[in-house]
Amino acid sequence: MEKITVVKIGGNVIDDPAALRGFLADFASLPGAKILVHGGGKLATRLAQKLELQVQMVDGRRITDKGTLDIVTMVYAGLVNKQLVAGLQAAGCNALGLSGADGNAVMARRRAPEPIDYGFVGDIESVNHTLLGELLGAGVTPVFCAIMHDGQGTLLNCNADSVASSVALGAARIAPTELVFCFEKSGVLRDPEDETTLIREITAESYAALKAGGIVSKGMIPKVENALKAVANGVRSVTIKHSENLLNDTGTVIR
Amino acid sequence: MEKITVVKIGGNVIDDPAALRGFLADFASLPGAKILVHGGGKLATRLAQKLELQVQMVDGRRITDKGTLDIVTMVYAGLVNKQLVAGLQAAGCNALGLSGADGNAVMARRRAPEPIDYGFVGDIESVNHTLLGELLGAGVTPVFCAIMHDGQGTLLNCNADSVASSVALGAARIAPTELVFCFEKSGVLRDPEDETTLIREITAESYAALKAGGIVSKGMIPKVENALKAVANGVRSVTIKHSENLLNDTGTVIR
Repeated sequence: MEKITVVKIGGNVIDDPAALRGFLADFASLPGAKILVHGGGKLATRLAQKLELQVQMVDGRRITDKGTLDIVTMVYAGLVNKQLVAGLQAAGCNALGLSGADGNAVMARRRAPEPIDYGFVGDIESVNHTLLGELLGAGVTPVFCAIMHDGQGTLLNCNADSVASSVALGAARIAPTELVFCFEKSGVLRDPEDETTLIREITAESYAALKAGGIVSKGMIPKVENALKAVANGVRSVTIKHSENLLNDTGTVIR
Repeated sequence: MEKITVVKIGGNVIDDPAALRGFLADFASLPGAKILVHGGGKLATRLAQKLELQVQMVDGRRITDKGTLDIVTMVYAGLVNKQLVAGLQAAGCNALGLSGADGNAVMARRRAPEPIDYGFVGDIESVNHTLLGELLGAGVTPVFCAIMHDGQGTLLNCNADSVASSVALGAARIAPTELVFCFEKSGVLRDPEDETTLIREITAESYAALKAGGIVSKGMIPKVENALKAVANGVRSVTIKHSENLLNDTGTVIR
């Protein structure tokens, strides 16, 4: 295998049928071995509301109780994952959906209940790169949701960005790997309101100044730090870009 | 591969946590290459009721409209499939969940809308025995739900018994295959109320007399005819038995 591309999409694409169709066509035409990682979208929240499930929040963070775990498993591992897989199959890409439990693809550990018990939330422990290698070698494109397991029979809700980074690190053990985070902006912007202020490249060196100057702030901090960590650990590059730009060069490259 | 065992379980096991735990332990300890096919259980119906989805019936049969398709995809391909896979992983069986769309494992065709339009209901067209062979060869146990795809991006709800038969016929192209239907009785009974009246063996020859005599009747007719067809087409044997008896010989063998 010459290289592997790992692409992560979030709810903004999943919730927009036209954007999703375009993205799936682009992703299907991406040459070489590839892996898709997807987040959830708003359907899980809407379903929880319809079922009048009480959303428990602690410190502004949602608690994944058993009812919520069942809903995200249904929506992410069921509906969203299978719709993406069927859509990719129709576009000529031999996709195969995976939760972490499938083929023991990704093992997670339930987050410690202290100081806050987030419920059925996990942090990634290990990625089964042997399985990834077998699937990619057979021309199959794995499509990951962010529902993982602990190996003891319990499913755990994980952060999709972390899943993408971990899967990319696993893939990097097979072949040179590039990781692409798709979201609703062209990349990291000097001015979040101005798409023309795109920062083309960030390195560990330049990041310190960008963070100190407040240019990378708020929600972009974990994204960029996650990316820098992936690069430091063996992923060749991480690109943050708009989901419409999958096939072109516009975006922020972190290396 | 010396042989392949395909086991189908229905809602009666899935809806009973204690029975399910016992079954998964038994299935995990079944030697050799194996495949699990599962039905749905009552959760999809309960969820549809909670969401106040109108169940459309024609001639006593449920219509799978888009809302119903989404629910069965969530419940069967999401929650039930991933809980079974995680439970098998915990029991030491390297399970991997599949809908028909995953790896293009099973292709279905939407049932003709005449005389009755059942909605998103499909009949099996083809099974990807190459994928089955690769997974089984890698020591992986496929776990199928009955949600298939048409290759054009549409998911279709199929009959789980038919999925099991079709998957077994696909498996029979790889190695000698035995198909086991687990349900809530010991097998085909001369008297449905008396478990001691188990019919040990049915062949195409003996079936004619059993049907004519009304001994095989109602819901057992499609089950036995489905089994006879599988045997006629290359499955070595089909056994109908109680899910508690997976590891012992009690049951009706059709060959």
